[in-house]
Amino acid sequence: MSQARYLALEGAEGSGKSTHAARLAERLGAVLTHETGGTEVGARLRAILHDVEVDLDDRAEALIIAADRAQHVARVVRPALVAGRCVVSDRSVYSTLAYQGFGRGLDLVELRQLNDWAIGGRWPDRVILLDASLEVLTARLGGRELDRFERAGDAFHRRVVEGFHTMAAEDPGRWVVVDASADPDVVADAVQRAATS
Amino acid sequence: MSQARYLALEGAEGSGKSTHAARLAERLGAVLTHETGGTEVGARLRAILHDVEVDLDDRAEALIIAADRAQHVARVVRPALVAGRCVVSDRSVYSTLAYQGFGRGLDLVELRQLNDWAIGGRWPDRVILLDASLEVLTARLGGRELDRFERAGDAFHRRVVEGFHTMAAEDPGRWVVVDASADPDVVADAVQRAATS
Repeated sequence: MSQARYLALEGAEGSGKSTHAARLAERLGAVLTHETGGTEVGARLRAILHDVEVDLDDRAEALIIAADRAQHVARVVRPALVAGRCVVSDRSVYSTLAYQGFGRGLDLVELRQLNDWAIGGRWPDRVILLDASLEVLTARLGGRELDRFERAGDAFHRRVVEGFHTMAAEDPGRWVVVDASADPDVVADAVQRAATS
Repeated sequence: MSQARYLALEGAEGSGKSTHAARLAERLGAVLTHETGGTEVGARLRAILHDVEVDLDDRAEALIIAADRAQHVARVVRPALVAGRCVVSDRSVYSTLAYQGFGRGLDLVELRQLNDWAIGGRWPDRVILLDASLEVLTARLGGRELDRFERAGDAFHRRVVEGFHTMAAEDPGRWVVVDASADPDVVADAVQRAATS
């Protein structure tokens, strides 16, 4: 690769994004980062988003997340790319389309426009979707205390997963789907191939 | 007035908005509220916005403020109006156009579109601009410790004030300009006339 690329890992909670983002970044010598909460401001925004006590309006939620993305792309992603470093991000703007669009039912065209503005048009170059069945994901999440998103229910999470698959199917030049229920080393290799293809 | 109205007071820091919003709400028996920070979520967002330690990207700032507005309109303004109460708000969506648009230089058309989405199209019915010279405003602010906005400098605040005047001139059916350097009782009467005209 001659050019610094912006690589995003996407998928539901429990799909192994954090683990494989870290492994991929190490293999590529890339900057490892994450959304939401990838900046100091973002961490404060994320605390609001995940607070189970908060009665958050759907649009307010989408806007707080868009603010997190704006700060993250402006202060972390862009500077790294400009410096010639690859960026591996655990989640990206596509999570917003999946969760707030497909999941919450906000208008996808409006949401895409809003987020395009937030990130100044800097979408990930490659998106790797870690794909596992809801049963596998639920089993992996079994031990955790659930936050506001994780409590949103099966129907919500099913719409989110379907959203990821819809976006992957519509934009095959950018998205690669990887089977995340396989052995972790096998998944890591597949993720690396997807990232460098 | 047969219908519940959404009334907003706008103007620069030091123009007396808070005082006159409170006086107006009392006279009208209206719900008194404010932006940013008019909800619990908003108060947490406002703390980020006004933190002088935060290096905030301009778009992230605009999005955090839009999130505050979305939550405020959805949880405070709309429910009050639906219940037949008038609403008096110390600042509104127009502050965003003045500060982030005219002040920071973000594209006004994009900013207006973003905020129209945030508030679900519920713009104030009447906007009262408290107008005072920068010299008067600076004198009034003299004793305060300055936050992130107040530190932004004279040129910034001059653009903000000009922005308010431009919007008032472009939309005279909605805006009324009141001379805020007059005696407080005279200003309060003028504000009430503007609110009920």
